[in-house]
Amino acid sequence: MTSTRDPDLPRTLDVDAVMAQLTREEKISLASGQDFWHTQGVERLGVPAVMVTDGPHGLRKQLGVSDHVGINASVPATCFPPAAGLASTWDPDLLRRVGEALADECRAERVAVLLGPGVNIKRSPLCGRNFEYFSEDPLLAGELATALVDGVQNRGVGTSLKHFAANNQETERMSVSAEVDERTLREIYLPAFERVVTRAQPWTVMCSYNKVNGVYASQDPWLLTQVLREDWGFEGLVVSDWGAVDDRALGVAAGLDLEMPSSGGVGEASIRAALEAGTLTEAQLDACVRRVLELVARALPALTPGQTFDADAHHALAREAARQSAVLLTNDGVLPLDPRSGGRIAVVGEMARSPRYQGAGSSQVNPTRLDDALTALREGTSREVVFAAGYALEGGADDRVDDALVVEAVEAARGAEVTLLFLGLPASYESEGYDRTHLDLPAAQVELLEAVRAVCDRVVVVLSNGSAVAVEGWVHHTSALLEGWLLGQAGGSATADLLYGAVSPSGRLAETLPVRLEDTPAYGAFPGDSGVVRYGEGLLVGYRWYDTRRMAVSFPFGHGLSYTTFEHSGLSAEVSGAGQGTTVDVQLVVTNTGGRAAAEVVQVYAAPQRPGVLRPVQELVGFARVALEPGASERVSLTLSARDLGQWSEVHGRWVLEGGPYEVRVGASSRDVRQAAVVEVEGEDLTSPLTPQSEAGTWLAHPVAGPRLRERLGDAVAALDDPQNGAMMRAIPLVRLARFPGFPVREDDLPAMAEEASAG
Amino acid sequence: MTSTRDPDLPRTLDVDAVMAQLTREEKISLASGQDFWHTQGVERLGVPAVMVTDGPHGLRKQLGVSDHVGINASVPATCFPPAAGLASTWDPDLLRRVGEALADECRAERVAVLLGPGVNIKRSPLCGRNFEYFSEDPLLAGELATALVDGVQNRGVGTSLKHFAANNQETERMSVSAEVDERTLREIYLPAFERVVTRAQPWTVMCSYNKVNGVYASQDPWLLTQVLREDWGFEGLVVSDWGAVDDRALGVAAGLDLEMPSSGGVGEASIRAALEAGTLTEAQLDACVRRVLELVARALPALTPGQTFDADAHHALAREAARQSAVLLTNDGVLPLDPRSGGRIAVVGEMARSPRYQGAGSSQVNPTRLDDALTALREGTSREVVFAAGYALEGGADDRVDDALVVEAVEAARGAEVTLLFLGLPASYESEGYDRTHLDLPAAQVELLEAVRAVCDRVVVVLSNGSAVAVEGWVHHTSALLEGWLLGQAGGSATADLLYGAVSPSGRLAETLPVRLEDTPAYGAFPGDSGVVRYGEGLLVGYRWYDTRRMAVSFPFGHGLSYTTFEHSGLSAEVSGAGQGTTVDVQLVVTNTGGRAAAEVVQVYAAPQRPGVLRPVQELVGFARVALEPGASERVSLTLSARDLGQWSEVHGRWVLEGGPYEVRVGASSRDVRQAAVVEVEGEDLTSPLTPQSEAGTWLAHPVAGPRLRERLGDAVAALDDPQNGAMMRAIPLVRLARFPGFPVREDDLPAMAEEASAG
Repeated sequence: MTSTRDPDLPRTLDVDAVMAQLTREEKISLASGQDFWHTQGVERLGVPAVMVTDGPHGLRKQLGVSDHVGINASVPATCFPPAAGLASTWDPDLLRRVGEALADECRAERVAVLLGPGVNIKRSPLCGRNFEYFSEDPLLAGELATALVDGVQNRGVGTSLKHFAANNQETERMSVSAEVDERTLREIYLPAFERVVTRAQPWTVMCSYNKVNGVYASQDPWLLTQVLREDWGFEGLVVSDWGAVDDRALGVAAGLDLEMPSSGGVGEASIRAALEAGTLTEAQLDACVRRVLELVARALPALTPGQTFDADAHHALAREAARQSAVLLTNDGVLPLDPRSGGRIAVVGEMARSPRYQGAGSSQVNPTRLDDALTALREGTSREVVFAAGYALEGGADDRVDDALVVEAVEAARGAEVTLLFLGLPASYESEGYDRTHLDLPAAQVELLEAVRAVCDRVVVVLSNGSAVAVEGWVHHTSALLEGWLLGQAGGSATADLLYGAVSPSGRLAETLPVRLEDTPAYGAFPGDSGVVRYGEGLLVGYRWYDTRRMAVSFPFGHGLSYTTFEHSGLSAEVSGAGQGTTVDVQLVVTNTGGRAAAEVVQVYAAPQRPGVLRPVQELVGFARVALEPGASERVSLTLSARDLGQWSEVHGRWVLEGGPYEVRVGASSRDVRQAAVVEVEGEDLTSPLTPQSEAGTWLAHPVAGPRLRERLGDAVAALDDPQNGAMMRAIPLVRLARFPGFPVREDDLPAMAEEASAG
Repeated sequence: MTSTRDPDLPRTLDVDAVMAQLTREEKISLASGQDFWHTQGVERLGVPAVMVTDGPHGLRKQLGVSDHVGINASVPATCFPPAAGLASTWDPDLLRRVGEALADECRAERVAVLLGPGVNIKRSPLCGRNFEYFSEDPLLAGELATALVDGVQNRGVGTSLKHFAANNQETERMSVSAEVDERTLREIYLPAFERVVTRAQPWTVMCSYNKVNGVYASQDPWLLTQVLREDWGFEGLVVSDWGAVDDRALGVAAGLDLEMPSSGGVGEASIRAALEAGTLTEAQLDACVRRVLELVARALPALTPGQTFDADAHHALAREAARQSAVLLTNDGVLPLDPRSGGRIAVVGEMARSPRYQGAGSSQVNPTRLDDALTALREGTSREVVFAAGYALEGGADDRVDDALVVEAVEAARGAEVTLLFLGLPASYESEGYDRTHLDLPAAQVELLEAVRAVCDRVVVVLSNGSAVAVEGWVHHTSALLEGWLLGQAGGSATADLLYGAVSPSGRLAETLPVRLEDTPAYGAFPGDSGVVRYGEGLLVGYRWYDTRRMAVSFPFGHGLSYTTFEHSGLSAEVSGAGQGTTVDVQLVVTNTGGRAAAEVVQVYAAPQRPGVLRPVQELVGFARVALEPGASERVSLTLSARDLGQWSEVHGRWVLEGGPYEVRVGASSRDVRQAAVVEVEGEDLTSPLTPQSEAGTWLAHPVAGPRLRERLGDAVAALDDPQNGAMMRAIPLVRLARFPGFPVREDDLPAMAEEASAG
């Protein structure tokens, strides 16, 4: 069996016809890849192999023959900001356009499926791969990823929504079991996947390496079939993360359609053996094979040769994305800098010259070009610009103070009107494959800041980092702090645009910046050990943790400044319908009350006021990015659904909506609520019918059963009504009281009494 | 079948002889109680019924016939401080003497078994029954309970160690499933039980109402047989908490020997049906019946009629215990008061006159007498003492400010040299049967404090509360703060003893006082809902949480002041042995450097310096209470074992000791470390043999397999050594790499390579 490769790809594939003719061995073959990056073909039936490649924020199509571990040099491609940056835009429209550009680059390289986006939740800032993920909040992650997927797929190229699921760390990622209760999965770790699947139907979903509650994701029928296909209606193909297959036959049975890369026959042998043993049926295999063929058929129209993309236009889009990705955390007025007049500008920090613009691992793109901030800053001003590296980035030098470089930096900063200090995490600090162990910048960089600050009053720090760093120890030395995350290949020029005020910053934090590592939700539990990581914080991830526990944070979720001011006004929140049909229409007006064009990100949080179950104090339920000229206003409308206000009920096995008051909070961060309105929601009837196991107090409170029980108890009810011990008694299941010596109602009476009660 | 009751109890029982003659129906009968408080007898074989009664800190033997819920008036008995008080003594010798006194009262009432002590861990300060439990720390709870059990059982009366297990809340206590991982159970929630069982062999253990990981404790073979009997060697009887039986036959099979109280035939029918169905064997029933008979046989010698106890001596012991139980939290020098000279003393607060001295529920004792602080304070001084109630304690009045009472209190305090303000939680705030919802004192009491403080500079607050209250909002108004917990019937006189300096306070906190409810470990997870409570904080309970997360607390675990000062000096810590045979001898000298006799509680914490698994930053591993005259010194010696330093390994299914440095910290609280020494411990060899699933990096680091693998990989090893992506590659299980296309080693090669490696 040999494959059909570029350039002689057919334009169509008749899946039914092929299915009818495939031999069993051909089917087995199709369920695994052909090599690192291609599906398997069947030459005799005209089934071609198609190519899939990394990565979410740019193409990583390997050059030449893949090596034996799948990581080597790749063709040039536009490096957009990684997800940590893109998420801070809170701008689905931008993500859609980035997706379209990615698709065009895929088409030019005849790539069928781009292996992204990744929507895993940032459970801990230590996760080494956080730069590839969007947010600590599933709504935000899901909305943005939906737009990216739509963008790619609109252009006939597939995506792979990953890493499904509960893959929130790199430590022991290929073996660790994430122990998470179902409600937490359903409310925190799965909804971003669910949103993308139900709204954008990604062509593929990539299962993760880890186990979920003891079962490898690659062979978990609950995850890959019940949740993904039955609950959410996923219609595409499930592909393994590269090397994620443990037992291929169990995977086929669970709904893992395609193993990647080729396992050199191990996976095929597993399937063959299971078919022979009867533990796997050919129908189960057929389901996988059909999905592989459907994927190929879907991909072929876009895989025509000779397509190109406009690298300049994509670079410009990367620059636009980078401009929107950076988050201005503080600003005492020093920004924006006037590029036309003023004293000397000192640019300090090796990262101004040698940008840190993406993360390491399988997502690492070979950029078509690379802007550095130093060059862009020099080109953008008539002011004098001096530069000093301040620190070195060569391997191992990250943490050591280089006295000569510090002296040079101090000399550059002395007498400057402002120092732009570029700090951040060296590449070795964060990568796919391992986790961070602390939140700190290299100590040498903090010392550099202090030295520079001693000679220059106005220090603006620009950060490059893929996930949160602790700022509390040094932020007081700064006049402004621009959180740049990783900004892709145009980050340097975009940074200059922001610092000079060509555009106003509009990014908002998609993850909380905590004060200390010890404050983070999973501290003491992350990354687990002995093969297990327990998600003990449950629902309280990110701002849900900090806000519910009323903890201090350095910068809250959703925070971000601009060069203008915004006023929120006229909030209204109106409920329609009831139960699962409930909607809440939220309206408000946003006005740019300052002097510059900029964008506001209106955030809507829902806060159940009297929840009957444990809930986070508030949760993001909607947002809108509004770009406004000075003085302009815009009405923002959002509709909240029962799902937005509800919670997953393990008792009912579905999403439910409790009745009661909910506060709708509208503001500019989770801690900057500008307006709020309480709405009264008519929930579902979630009360359970009386059973013998119901507490005595529940029986007594029942409109029908209560008076009847009271009558039967006679004087014995006094103990239940007792002001001192009555509460204790009423909390006892009636069946247990009924077994007590002398209790006037007996266990045998209870089923009939319960039936009477439900009859009314 | 009728019972043999007082006064005609036999002196002995031949268990073997009875067992040989019992009919099946008699056996079934013996596995359940006869009524609320008696075991079942068998008259024809001379098996008497024996009586068991509540409670841990005093006898609650009901008067007359028990009512239908088992809670009504009881015979007078000495009310010692509940466990929350006794635990603060850190004094096993005192607990032993209290136990002996309790036993004497049991003998006088012909009670076979006292239903206590309770060693559940204080997971949350909100647990309504915390007053009946000792501590947030299992070592402290276990040591003190061991002493109490020894005391009772030394005198021929049985105890019932309760509530086994993971019963750490009252909410839904009869149905909730405590979801706790095994390591957390083994290290936090079970060790206090384990310590008492292995050191004192309580006659009985009482299973709890709740489920543990989905299984009712009353029918959990893992808990009642594997852990309790097989792992710990428990030789006594397991009794149900009153009404804790769900399925009696499953209970018999699991090791629940005795159902209490009588279920009116329900339990018997369940056993009968299971025997007939063959799901339960008669041998299983025999094991339970034999233990019931053994308990009766064991109890009979002490159940002779006509015994009495010395109520005065017991009251004096209760006073001694209360003196040691109170914890002086702050003191600016105002205490002790000179009873012989000085200005007017204002005593304010209804609790000075109407003491709150024990908790509500099944442990509520009818005291032989009751000291109130107001009377004792008046009797103890020649100074003028005025009193004002300040607030009312009648039902519902707790939270409302009574203006007239406040005015009266302000008038009493005005011009007083000192105001002794008695505040605390009203009885309705904490009880068996329900949990608290907040940590606050009644708002009216805080307002009273503020009003009094406005007219009197020196306000000493004395607290009465069964579990932690938040003090942060008002402690700055006080000149001294005495945490009295609940002090039993002699608490009033003991408080006067402490305030006047007749004795120095020597209590130490057995639970952390947190700043805010939101800071507590289980906040947001306690008390669960929908039938489940998840112990997501895992090992990080109490100070393990606050210290590991480096959080501010109001007062740390172990804290307590006295009227003198102590110096710790000359710490030495010497390691002997290795692995499971490791011991660390800790020695130091404590000197009373102040002017009054008092007791210091030396606390030893172990802090693993480089643990390979997640561990609390430090844990209590030993303590010693040292009473010293002014100027006197004493050498304190403690021996730590491998168990003290080790952790439960779920991988190995046992306690293990990791090698490496451990800091031995000695001090006066978890945050007041006075001396520390690092010892190097030679641990067990815990490395696992290489398998194909071992990570590539583990293979490469192996002394034998590493070089061989490197040779076979040839050039391909470069990717694993790569400075950028090598770490990611090395974290991949070798078997997964071996399936990658082109990887030079194949899956089939690995078993032999692993075998070679272990052969060396």
